[in-house]
Amino acid sequence: MKNKVITSREDDFAQWYTDVVKAARLADYTAVKGCIAIEPNGYAIWEKMQSILDKKFKELGHVNVQMPMLIPENLLKKEGELVEGFAPEVAWVTSGGSKLLDEKLCIRPTSETLFCDYYSTHVKSYRDLPMLYNQWCNVLRWEKETRPFLRSREFLWQEGHTVHSSEKEALEETKKMMDVYVWFHNEILAIPSITGIKTEKEKFAGAEFTLTNEAMMYNGVCLQSGTSHYFGQKFSKAYDVKFSNKENKEEYVYQTSWGTTTRMIGGLIMVHSDDYGLVLPPRIAPKQVVIIPIGNSDKVNELVRSYESKLNNEGVVTYVDNSEKSPGFKFAEAEVNGIPVRIEVGERDLDNDVIVFVRRDTREKICVNLSDLDVVNYTKDLLEIIQRDMYERAKRRRDELTFEAYNLDDFKNIMAKTPGFIKADWCGNEECEVKLKEINGLKSRCVLENEKCINGNCAVCGKEAKHLVIWGIQY
Amino acid sequence: MKNKVITSREDDFAQWYTDVVKAARLADYTAVKGCIAIEPNGYAIWEKMQSILDKKFKELGHVNVQMPMLIPENLLKKEGELVEGFAPEVAWVTSGGSKLLDEKLCIRPTSETLFCDYYSTHVKSYRDLPMLYNQWCNVLRWEKETRPFLRSREFLWQEGHTVHSSEKEALEETKKMMDVYVWFHNEILAIPSITGIKTEKEKFAGAEFTLTNEAMMYNGVCLQSGTSHYFGQKFSKAYDVKFSNKENKEEYVYQTSWGTTTRMIGGLIMVHSDDYGLVLPPRIAPKQVVIIPIGNSDKVNELVRSYESKLNNEGVVTYVDNSEKSPGFKFAEAEVNGIPVRIEVGERDLDNDVIVFVRRDTREKICVNLSDLDVVNYTKDLLEIIQRDMYERAKRRRDELTFEAYNLDDFKNIMAKTPGFIKADWCGNEECEVKLKEINGLKSRCVLENEKCINGNCAVCGKEAKHLVIWGIQY
Repeated sequence: MKNKVITSREDDFAQWYTDVVKAARLADYTAVKGCIAIEPNGYAIWEKMQSILDKKFKELGHVNVQMPMLIPENLLKKEGELVEGFAPEVAWVTSGGSKLLDEKLCIRPTSETLFCDYYSTHVKSYRDLPMLYNQWCNVLRWEKETRPFLRSREFLWQEGHTVHSSEKEALEETKKMMDVYVWFHNEILAIPSITGIKTEKEKFAGAEFTLTNEAMMYNGVCLQSGTSHYFGQKFSKAYDVKFSNKENKEEYVYQTSWGTTTRMIGGLIMVHSDDYGLVLPPRIAPKQVVIIPIGNSDKVNELVRSYESKLNNEGVVTYVDNSEKSPGFKFAEAEVNGIPVRIEVGERDLDNDVIVFVRRDTREKICVNLSDLDVVNYTKDLLEIIQRDMYERAKRRRDELTFEAYNLDDFKNIMAKTPGFIKADWCGNEECEVKLKEINGLKSRCVLENEKCINGNCAVCGKEAKHLVIWGIQY
Repeated sequence: MKNKVITSREDDFAQWYTDVVKAARLADYTAVKGCIAIEPNGYAIWEKMQSILDKKFKELGHVNVQMPMLIPENLLKKEGELVEGFAPEVAWVTSGGSKLLDEKLCIRPTSETLFCDYYSTHVKSYRDLPMLYNQWCNVLRWEKETRPFLRSREFLWQEGHTVHSSEKEALEETKKMMDVYVWFHNEILAIPSITGIKTEKEKFAGAEFTLTNEAMMYNGVCLQSGTSHYFGQKFSKAYDVKFSNKENKEEYVYQTSWGTTTRMIGGLIMVHSDDYGLVLPPRIAPKQVVIIPIGNSDKVNELVRSYESKLNNEGVVTYVDNSEKSPGFKFAEAEVNGIPVRIEVGERDLDNDVIVFVRRDTREKICVNLSDLDVVNYTKDLLEIIQRDMYERAKRRRDELTFEAYNLDDFKNIMAKTPGFIKADWCGNEECEVKLKEINGLKSRCVLENEKCINGNCAVCGKEAKHLVIWGIQY
């Protein structure tokens, strides 16, 4: 039975998305325009994302800090490109404590300025380097059109900011952190990653270059899901962040920054979910297994309790739905909330030596012989199978929606049918990039550095191509 | 050897505090007036506080959410007392995305309004209750005088906001969460707790009553360290948060809120630290043991590595200082950073079958026979002894600085010598409370509900006393 409150994904993708967010109680709108309330089910996903990423960051030597949420106007202005990039979308605090401020303060849209200001007084010698700082915080960007998780004025993220004594080390850091995001998407979120470098036009304001992780949603629209920027000495020169090197000479530090956001929750939904609600890959699901007793016999209750404790003891996050609702209602609720595995325990089944497992991703019912069942190993295996299948399914979908274009007509023909990843050669000229925007707002997603051009001619102007680029439309 | 950059605590307590914060690299000032950067050593303490409290909250059934950081002016204004209490200290956002806003937005000083607004649309039936929500976030209050951790414009905290179907349940929640804070202070932070109820004058704006946890700093000044508020139906009436009860009648919900902040880091410092730097109770120390090798022989290195892995495997957070600094420098650094136990491993000592443990709290050197040593159990026991001793020491100090006053002269004589907790009977009249403010700014800290009055006469006006109250000056 299809969930009644969820619009069909095929009929209206945008409405389907909003319906899933609401039905799974992930987030809701608030009295503050463009800002959402992240509800318990949504926040639990963010907490799990945080715990997995934070552990990885720390293993790689990073430490967490917390900078202020406000930035004085003058400090923001120091790096010209950054302020140009962000000025149109910041919010300004102009009074505090009932008084007009002498200098207005913006709410951080990102914290390069504050980190640079900190580093400028705390970095002295090469012995202090590298400093590998990260912070988990909220930022604000005054977006005009918003959509829960994907684009909201306030969002939560982590922003890493590192300073190094050499270009080589900073370049390695930029690459290494993108590798972490790729790993996280592939292995944890079951979202196949495509990474490359952003074009000059699309890179982060103030970066030398930007690496990006691009995900494709079920409908073929692209989502930028994690970026890692190499700053070289651009910011260190603007903010005067110097160190004395081993030869006792003053030198500007080399910097990176990298970030991922609550937007990944939106990506998870748009890649994996269906008309029945949320579908979560087991490795990111805050609750992995729900056990639903049918009836109230001792035999059922005993088995339920024993499975619950066995699974939790082995690290499989399991809960029992013992509420007074009907089994059918409980099934639907577990389904809409995206619990990867549901175990149904009914007396009649037990009498027949049967127990029922239901996969959320395929909705397949599996009847298992109770007497043969090693519940922990069986469930762990099933969760891993689901994780792998979800990745493969997302990858197949992406591959189906990945096209090649040799000329403008190809672009138009593809986009007339469906959006997707469109691979095409590009001469490197911004004019050609801008021209493609006329076709449904196509933008370059990333330059595939390690792949050769298809036929060597720019698909827009026909001149000699320099890069193979993925184009697409974006959230 | 006393740390040269730290002013003596006896000479200048305020400067000593600032020096410890800087020397232990817990936090630093920033370009944003009244806002600090929390550095890695400071943030690690906050992370440990979060992990311990969050686990406890969740055990008690609470879940985390995230509300917006901005509050529209009209929403804030709905509860009259709240807006009166907070209006003088909020910061206002008046423009966003290069445009003046139609309605200004304040940065949250606290989030009752946003939670109430959420609950007003999400609470429908008694079946939805209780909702036990908490959030970890930043808030902003435009303080005039600031001091790192103790009082800064922006700070980090957790704010629990719960809604219940009965007064009884909400009252229990208010009490239960104060018990959590008391437990956390006594058992984890080694700061003896005094709790009671705030007077009408000092309670949270909009609360029916406020429970408070009051800590005493080494210099006798008080620090409010955690509050739990009972709102009854005050907010639910202002924000129209209703549910239909079991009799299918509409009723306003009963609410609570409770919070603790990064201020607790300031309390930790002011209660336990000394002229050599930070002193941390083992249960809150992010790093509990440092091993410092002296010399570079195989024998030393092998033992160091073996101890490091044994201790970490048993949950004792241990690191080895293998940097190129001199042993003396490493000792001083571990000391200023407040690592509870230092293990010195030197070749000559090993030849003499000796290993040296140094307690940070007492700076006592303990020579242990190597051949008898079970390093894991010995270290665990030592950490527990330190934890207990630190609590006992803080309690003795507090008891030494706890006085009784029977009249105004007593108050004056006590305050002429030292601040502290001053116990005195009170008639319950706000005039008497205000009068005491003339003496060095004395304020009521809390009413001791379960203790009898001393002699039954108000220490200010001499009339019949209703309450035994603790008075003191505060950060």
